[in-house]
Amino acid sequence: MSTIPAYAAPSAGAPLAPTTITRRAVRGADVRIAIKYSGVCHTDVVQTSDGWGKGLYPMVPGHEITGLVVETGPDATRYAVGDRVGVGTYIDSCRTCEACEAGLEVYCLNGCTSTYNAVDRDGETTQGGYSGEIVVDERYVVRIPDSLPLDAAAPLLCAGITTYSPLAHWKVGPGTRIAVLGMGGLGHVAVQLAHAMGAEVTVLSRTLGKKDDGLRLGADHYYATEDPATFEELAGSFDIVLCTVSGALHFDRYLGLLKLDGTLVNVGAPDEDITMNNWALIPARRSYAASSAGGMPEIQEMLDFCGAHGITAQIETVRVQDVNDAFARLERSQVRYRFVIDMASLEA
Amino acid sequence: MSTIPAYAAPSAGAPLAPTTITRRAVRGADVRIAIKYSGVCHTDVVQTSDGWGKGLYPMVPGHEITGLVVETGPDATRYAVGDRVGVGTYIDSCRTCEACEAGLEVYCLNGCTSTYNAVDRDGETTQGGYSGEIVVDERYVVRIPDSLPLDAAAPLLCAGITTYSPLAHWKVGPGTRIAVLGMGGLGHVAVQLAHAMGAEVTVLSRTLGKKDDGLRLGADHYYATEDPATFEELAGSFDIVLCTVSGALHFDRYLGLLKLDGTLVNVGAPDEDITMNNWALIPARRSYAASSAGGMPEIQEMLDFCGAHGITAQIETVRVQDVNDAFARLERSQVRYRFVIDMASLEA
Repeated sequence: MSTIPAYAAPSAGAPLAPTTITRRAVRGADVRIAIKYSGVCHTDVVQTSDGWGKGLYPMVPGHEITGLVVETGPDATRYAVGDRVGVGTYIDSCRTCEACEAGLEVYCLNGCTSTYNAVDRDGETTQGGYSGEIVVDERYVVRIPDSLPLDAAAPLLCAGITTYSPLAHWKVGPGTRIAVLGMGGLGHVAVQLAHAMGAEVTVLSRTLGKKDDGLRLGADHYYATEDPATFEELAGSFDIVLCTVSGALHFDRYLGLLKLDGTLVNVGAPDEDITMNNWALIPARRSYAASSAGGMPEIQEMLDFCGAHGITAQIETVRVQDVNDAFARLERSQVRYRFVIDMASLEA
Repeated sequence: MSTIPAYAAPSAGAPLAPTTITRRAVRGADVRIAIKYSGVCHTDVVQTSDGWGKGLYPMVPGHEITGLVVETGPDATRYAVGDRVGVGTYIDSCRTCEACEAGLEVYCLNGCTSTYNAVDRDGETTQGGYSGEIVVDERYVVRIPDSLPLDAAAPLLCAGITTYSPLAHWKVGPGTRIAVLGMGGLGHVAVQLAHAMGAEVTVLSRTLGKKDDGLRLGADHYYATEDPATFEELAGSFDIVLCTVSGALHFDRYLGLLKLDGTLVNVGAPDEDITMNNWALIPARRSYAASSAGGMPEIQEMLDFCGAHGITAQIETVRVQDVNDAFARLERSQVRYRFVIDMASLEA
């Protein structure tokens, strides 16, 4: 067991403050990772303020982790000291159910164990990446391709896989017409991924304010949703609409953008119910779906894909001492496009 | 042009009363059909009372039509006088769009023409099956297998195809676990179809009142939705939940019955919005979908399948003079399981 520095929310909604936490000694197939970077996901803001309820405090958020292996357990075979690795939104699962056996650990029928704000199989509260080190079984660790920098790769562990997984599952590729709804932390990665997969990509953002960025990242078209003409012009146009916006939207007008047999996949996680009218689906046999992050093999596949295509998040690096300010700016959408904490600052 | 007897709603919500309507002279590939039976669909009640708005009056409802060909146009090649045929929910479409070319005429991108309460491509208001005859282009006419009686086959033209089409599209077959929500006009046909396709079929009905019928028609299991234990016991059990209930339900507890990658298909058409929480979908990558009746080739395929498996609706035959009473009983769910009007009564 080791004691390491971290930043935690001491209670629901309280500002994050320096603290220390303990990590278990490596055992079995564990690897101990010196955390270099930790991305700031919007769900970190939600969970530290107990937006989903049942928050466990003190809470160390962070599930977009990159770093270096500094120790390996006796049964670890995949990684060696010095390897560049990442940890995403979960650090364990039952390993025996149908989903785990299929490499879909995030959909573990017995519940995967979230990287923080969860109780692990030892009964310990999990603590995330806003800390100096983490100890994780190597099954739940991925390799960061050498071509990707550890800082800009960190958000791929959540924003990347959460968008890559539905794109892969719904078979986005050459010939696919896809609309990415929202040009934020997830959306700006989704645009790059869908473009690299060969799809024709349209961004739907509230305004045209980020149009130049969208086109630079690979979008073929860019429309403002504040303009009602957008919905007329694009009606019935898309095979897939990927919603990366976490709001309690009324989905009819977005569903209306789908072609026959098209699917709207919502990877947002609004707390409030969402609504639609069945008649927005019936006339074109449309579907509304949601998905989570991917299974472990798919996370590695996504990183290798990003490595091959030079895809990372566009980031702004911050010191951990400035994380509360970053949270506040994130709430106001004042980031292009993802904050990443340089964990070296933890020692400052 | 011919003048024929019919029953129509003279205005929104008024009782149906005897009248006469005109049918065009046969032309091109038309066939003229002497209507023998006309099923009573719940949407007949909804539309005659203008539940969807924009009702066209006087309105002759009826889109579950069976009868005999009595005349064919010069270009008709599929049917001959005396053939046993059916007409379903639409009688025309653009015939040139992608959907029509794929034999998915019900999803015509320019809008298929409903059998009644619509304006056809000549500018005439369409009038349905509560009448003595109908004239329809043979593309929109199907053949009733000799093994099926014309009365009990009539509801297959809507209730049958509306459930067969999603079962086929979502690949229900041996190994599939399906729940049919609702044991009414559509549900009791869906149970027979899914059973004949080789699936393991569970009925979810409000009470156990129709359990014997459900098991007799092919269900393997039967549960009451008024019992909260049903939702605990069946959580995560089904590949498909087919909702045949036309209500503004909150879908979370039904979505929770789906396995990983399962789909809830709602063939109900409630006017009110439906609601769900995205978290009912996320943890198992579930989908919510809707579908309409099928394309013309699929309607014929469905009838042939029913012919081969001896599947029909369970019907109560009524005289057209009693149709308002039938409507009232249907509104109170007092029918097992479909009213069919014997159109011979029209001459009485």
